[in-house]
Amino acid sequence: MSSTPVDLSSFVRPHDSTSPRVSAMAGKIVGSEILKIAGEIRALVAKGQPVCNLTVGDFDPKQFSIPESLRQHIVAAYDAHETNYPPSNGMPQLRDAVQRFYQRELGLSYPLDSILIASGARPVIYGIYRAVVDPGDTVVYPVPSWNNNHYVTMTGSKSVTVQCGPETRFLPTREMIEKALPGARLVCLNTPLNPTGTAMARDMVLGVSEAIVRENEQRRSRGEKPVYLMYDQIYWMLTAAGTEHVSPPQLVPEMARYTIFVDGISKAFAATGVRVGWAIGPTDVIDRMSAILGHVGAWAPRAEQIATAKMLEEPGACRAYVDTLKSGIVGRLSALHEGFQALKGHGLPVDSLSPEGAIYLTVQLAPFGKKTPAGQTLTTNEEVRRYVLDAAGIGIVPFQAFGYPGDTGWFRLSVGAVSMREIQDALPRLGEALRALA
Amino acid sequence: MSSTPVDLSSFVRPHDSTSPRVSAMAGKIVGSEILKIAGEIRALVAKGQPVCNLTVGDFDPKQFSIPESLRQHIVAAYDAHETNYPPSNGMPQLRDAVQRFYQRELGLSYPLDSILIASGARPVIYGIYRAVVDPGDTVVYPVPSWNNNHYVTMTGSKSVTVQCGPETRFLPTREMIEKALPGARLVCLNTPLNPTGTAMARDMVLGVSEAIVRENEQRRSRGEKPVYLMYDQIYWMLTAAGTEHVSPPQLVPEMARYTIFVDGISKAFAATGVRVGWAIGPTDVIDRMSAILGHVGAWAPRAEQIATAKMLEEPGACRAYVDTLKSGIVGRLSALHEGFQALKGHGLPVDSLSPEGAIYLTVQLAPFGKKTPAGQTLTTNEEVRRYVLDAAGIGIVPFQAFGYPGDTGWFRLSVGAVSMREIQDALPRLGEALRALA
Repeated sequence: MSSTPVDLSSFVRPHDSTSPRVSAMAGKIVGSEILKIAGEIRALVAKGQPVCNLTVGDFDPKQFSIPESLRQHIVAAYDAHETNYPPSNGMPQLRDAVQRFYQRELGLSYPLDSILIASGARPVIYGIYRAVVDPGDTVVYPVPSWNNNHYVTMTGSKSVTVQCGPETRFLPTREMIEKALPGARLVCLNTPLNPTGTAMARDMVLGVSEAIVRENEQRRSRGEKPVYLMYDQIYWMLTAAGTEHVSPPQLVPEMARYTIFVDGISKAFAATGVRVGWAIGPTDVIDRMSAILGHVGAWAPRAEQIATAKMLEEPGACRAYVDTLKSGIVGRLSALHEGFQALKGHGLPVDSLSPEGAIYLTVQLAPFGKKTPAGQTLTTNEEVRRYVLDAAGIGIVPFQAFGYPGDTGWFRLSVGAVSMREIQDALPRLGEALRALA
Repeated sequence: MSSTPVDLSSFVRPHDSTSPRVSAMAGKIVGSEILKIAGEIRALVAKGQPVCNLTVGDFDPKQFSIPESLRQHIVAAYDAHETNYPPSNGMPQLRDAVQRFYQRELGLSYPLDSILIASGARPVIYGIYRAVVDPGDTVVYPVPSWNNNHYVTMTGSKSVTVQCGPETRFLPTREMIEKALPGARLVCLNTPLNPTGTAMARDMVLGVSEAIVRENEQRRSRGEKPVYLMYDQIYWMLTAAGTEHVSPPQLVPEMARYTIFVDGISKAFAATGVRVGWAIGPTDVIDRMSAILGHVGAWAPRAEQIATAKMLEEPGACRAYVDTLKSGIVGRLSALHEGFQALKGHGLPVDSLSPEGAIYLTVQLAPFGKKTPAGQTLTTNEEVRRYVLDAAGIGIVPFQAFGYPGDTGWFRLSVGAVSMREIQDALPRLGEALRALA
């Protein structure tokens, strides 16, 4: 085209913002609170201020890169011209590899038609919601938890939230879930948990499993639909020493009738941008998720699927990689936890829960009622977050971003994108900032 | 795990198939008819029968591989550890590159916040439907067309189909669309068209555009929501010589208010498995699509986004690649078209439309009422399809798979996965099979 392009700027911005132009659902979805905070941090960094960014649930490849073998297998697949459509439910060799991986590492033997590949864990979550939840249905999930509110909005369902506190390390017990089961269509659990970094203990998983099996036995006798369990175990390989990851079918095999696993390489292999995840569950639900995600087109790229299959078939190298990643993650989480405990020991209004897994640490910063040097009295999580960012250069996310209500002083710290040095430099700044409060 | 894995096969297959276990929407979605036919063909090939597979809308990398520069840029991005999350709306350099690409090649100048990256064209289509269509809303689309029926099911909307015949080369005119506009929320057009390989002419695009602008002027005066146009131009670079691709904002700039483009690298760069697509449209709709697809997680992988940006910024190499691809595609389409015209010239009951673009050819095979050597009278498209597959080893897809009703003898032929030689070998087999009918 040699002529001047037509400038369409004046047309594409809505001239009349009072009339609704999008669907009711689209109008209701809210953006990610975490991304808003990330924007603020980018602005500070651009100004040259040192910021220890503990906000994003991601990895910095300079700190944690994907396994070298995964990278090589991706390059080899592209060299072999693996560039056309993968099958809608995933490359057969990857479904095979996931099957063997679960047999080997988790002791769970699923048939192949229980396994579906998708472009990461998010499409799997979305697929589960759409495959089992009708508009108006009830979805039960504990808070704090990640993004369930958005999936409820997108399916037009109703949420029943189960509020968990520090007394259970922000995790749900059998009793808490059991009360919410009647009338529920889907229960959503995640362990190790984003945002808390705590993991459900064996008795919790067993209790919830038994409650769901009992509820569904009653429903079956009444000819009613079952309640399903979305079991998001994307962080299961990332557990701290002494913490055991357990899943419902391991403890109660019948739970395989109702459990749909969310999993993938995004976290345990630091591969959030590579976009390979999978679902494992009852064959009829998996078949419907495959139909849904096929039309959505949320397929993992073909070369990356082939490469992931090869990587998962190298058990020794996989474990060695995960061990190294884990020691880097747990080292950072422990440094932060010890730093917070030391500040607490000095009488400062902070606390933290010992890390059990994922890439997160739960901390409390509760200098409520105190005055900043600028004369502002801190009364909300948001005010504390801003103060810690401005005065100490530390980016953190309040639990409200995970559906946990109230100005309780609880925050998520995420360590995938920071170095040990940044943590060591940040802790004294935090101490100073807290001591500067009057 | 050293213990024997728990065998869950007996639990994951529903024991009581009479009670519904999935959502109403999930229960209604039907699988792809094309994939069912593909399964049959695989079975024949496994038996050693030569099959000219003209069914899949994909490429065989042995026939058409992605640009070598794209492959190299992907490898370079992986070498540079580009493996963490891309921004939810796409890598900035790819949004920049798409912006310049549209300015340069299509003469359309869009602001950056009109551009959204996704994991292929399908997520873009799904995102458009969900961003503007409410349950119960009306979606207008011509038939034959690809997959709109599935997206209508997934949004709980109602479809008004506009049936197009051979007299308009299976494309809609202004009058046909205009009649369906009152009450419509979304009109879905695709040109060059899957499945027909025909392209909307300038006067058709102009007519539809004027009708939509007029309809929306009336709506605005009544304070009503506008009707949007989904303009799927994923095949726009693949047009035959003498065929011009035009888009609504090129002819009527005001159409940029209502037009959402579907586009990507999947077809023009033979990169269906690389998973990079984009949407371009009004900023408020794009913003909502970004929120929706962010929660769905239908993101293009980071390295492939960076590589696509680099490739699009090499105009000469891009055009050279597309020219070569196009000549291979058009060569195959023309060989088939000429072959069909020759058979027609010999009095056989076939016809074909001259190819204008995409990777498809429209043919008619109408030996209805004739008897096969086995004594079967052919009365339906499905019977003709089976006969052509069994007797001539040619896989084709009836127009019913694209929502076009009736046993009219119209079929789609797709050439991305076959060699010229396979076509040359198949045509005589077809002639023989047709002559064997009595």
